[in-house]
Amino acid sequence: MAIRAWAAGDRGARFEPRSIELAPLGDEDVEIDVEHCGICHSDLSMLDNEWSSTRYPFVGGHEVVGRVVARGAHAKKVAIGDRVGIGWCASSCMHCERCLGGEHHLCPNGTKTIVGRPGGFAERVRCHWVWAVPVPAALDPAEAAPLFCAGVTVFAPMIDFDVRPLDRVGVVGIGGLGHLALKFLRAWGCEVWAFTSNPNKADEALALGAHHVVGTHDPASLKALSNTLDFVIATGNVALDWNRYLGTLAPHGRLHIVGAVLEDLRVSLFSLMRSGQSLSSSPVGSPTHTARMLDFAARHRIAPRIERTPMTGINEAFDRLKAGNVRYRMVLDADFAGVSGGGNVR
Amino acid sequence: MAIRAWAAGDRGARFEPRSIELAPLGDEDVEIDVEHCGICHSDLSMLDNEWSSTRYPFVGGHEVVGRVVARGAHAKKVAIGDRVGIGWCASSCMHCERCLGGEHHLCPNGTKTIVGRPGGFAERVRCHWVWAVPVPAALDPAEAAPLFCAGVTVFAPMIDFDVRPLDRVGVVGIGGLGHLALKFLRAWGCEVWAFTSNPNKADEALALGAHHVVGTHDPASLKALSNTLDFVIATGNVALDWNRYLGTLAPHGRLHIVGAVLEDLRVSLFSLMRSGQSLSSSPVGSPTHTARMLDFAARHRIAPRIERTPMTGINEAFDRLKAGNVRYRMVLDADFAGVSGGGNVR
Repeated sequence: MAIRAWAAGDRGARFEPRSIELAPLGDEDVEIDVEHCGICHSDLSMLDNEWSSTRYPFVGGHEVVGRVVARGAHAKKVAIGDRVGIGWCASSCMHCERCLGGEHHLCPNGTKTIVGRPGGFAERVRCHWVWAVPVPAALDPAEAAPLFCAGVTVFAPMIDFDVRPLDRVGVVGIGGLGHLALKFLRAWGCEVWAFTSNPNKADEALALGAHHVVGTHDPASLKALSNTLDFVIATGNVALDWNRYLGTLAPHGRLHIVGAVLEDLRVSLFSLMRSGQSLSSSPVGSPTHTARMLDFAARHRIAPRIERTPMTGINEAFDRLKAGNVRYRMVLDADFAGVSGGGNVR
Repeated sequence: MAIRAWAAGDRGARFEPRSIELAPLGDEDVEIDVEHCGICHSDLSMLDNEWSSTRYPFVGGHEVVGRVVARGAHAKKVAIGDRVGIGWCASSCMHCERCLGGEHHLCPNGTKTIVGRPGGFAERVRCHWVWAVPVPAALDPAEAAPLFCAGVTVFAPMIDFDVRPLDRVGVVGIGGLGHLALKFLRAWGCEVWAFTSNPNKADEALALGAHHVVGTHDPASLKALSNTLDFVIATGNVALDWNRYLGTLAPHGRLHIVGAVLEDLRVSLFSLMRSGQSLSSSPVGSPTHTARMLDFAARHRIAPRIERTPMTGINEAFDRLKAGNVRYRMVLDADFAGVSGGGNVR
């Protein structure tokens, strides 16, 4: 069968409508009729082939919400008509040590939604049934879309690295990931500090859940927080002076970087040795992480702040993302009624 | 009162006998008649003022075992005649959050045995009672000395960072700290890999407890261990290609550096993001860590391999340390019978 999608023909090119030929649906796969798809900074990195893994024509989109419209013969858990979401991962082998241990996102044999296959900037998208995670009815479907990548990326480490309601925590960078981290950590019971280089975001950070805002343009403001924070999550993708942030950590504190920073991290050993600090990172989360996050979001009425636009406005949406002025996540509404596909790409 | 000690008058100078005037013993302090004192690489770093905290004349020595010979009026826990050890820390305030939380080694108000005060290369050494940790009778007193710094430095993170008997672990650098790490981790129930740049140490590493030895001169040997180790402890004090060691880590694995590496650590974010890895460090351990380590060492008959020499041979011992050919820890036996002190230094 053929579906319509927005595909970029080359590195950094504009997205154009294309028709994509799909193989027969796999036995364990499901097919989703796309309703909404968030735009993540990783879509831009992939468009620009920053990680040398992009196949062109490139169909991005890995924050998808939609309805299950087809199921392979051996698909489990989800039924036709269910509203589900898909994130960064599209399949896992289900039998390796990681999959059997509940960490399907670490499966070395898995596929990623937009790597070597078409993602959610399309009419339909497919995944293994384990990665089609039901969206709770209490969540708005368009707002739920960014939770499947941005949301779980900041939420999974709160589980895996034992963030506790007793903790003082920091969020560095108040963007797509960071603004969700503020909301989640506030609801988690923590004392929340927001770090931003943009003084205009102070009031917004407080409204998003921060108890305190620190302007990172002022070195003294970080110094004043020396030895106080138990968990600091850095969400931007630019290199920072990491030693300054390690200096804010309490004994046994952790600086956790989830932004895709390309430059090597340079840190002083003594900023870790001082009192048992850790530096770490992590990639997205498992289906269980995702389901728990969605449940937590529904219980606490947590949603990203999004800007919505029809998918026909995809190129303008990417322009706004590149300019860094989306507040705080762009979500495309799938609408292929007036879109006719170009040539087949797969 | 005056005691005799071996003091270096200036940066990098030879140790010479000196007489040291001590103030009256503090109410909560104990005084120990030194029997044995290990030499740690930190003594050399302090002798050379590498950390800009050395006061000259400098009396090093912070792996002390001896008998309690005096007690302040409010000293607790230890009695005159008890055999105890002292490590890096000499006092803690006992009332800060860290002390009350059982982490006296992280007390910001504490003093260190050889920083701004005379250490264990002396007839007598003093500390707050909490830092005089009883030596189990089952341990040889000379062999016990290095446990108070080298031992607890590698043992405390096994507790604090939850190393489990199920884990595959690596020890990088088979020296004073590393050879103890091999013994402890073997007794802890782990599968133990030794990493050494010295092919001649392979048989010794196996004898010390390693199940497997990896020659780090061969890049392929580390590559073959990709994604397998849960905990790697690096014990040397020279900069390594840390990304290579991060590459050996299993998901959620940890590279823990306890050697005092002066150069900045340079790591790729993606070597941590890959599957939730951590990079960390820690300083020595608490009195409780120390007591638990001593108990564990006694139960498993674990002792460092030491070379012993009378304290009168201190300068030759330092020469051997600098040359890097001590196997694996040098311990000085206190013997001041024929030593007459020079001028007073305090």
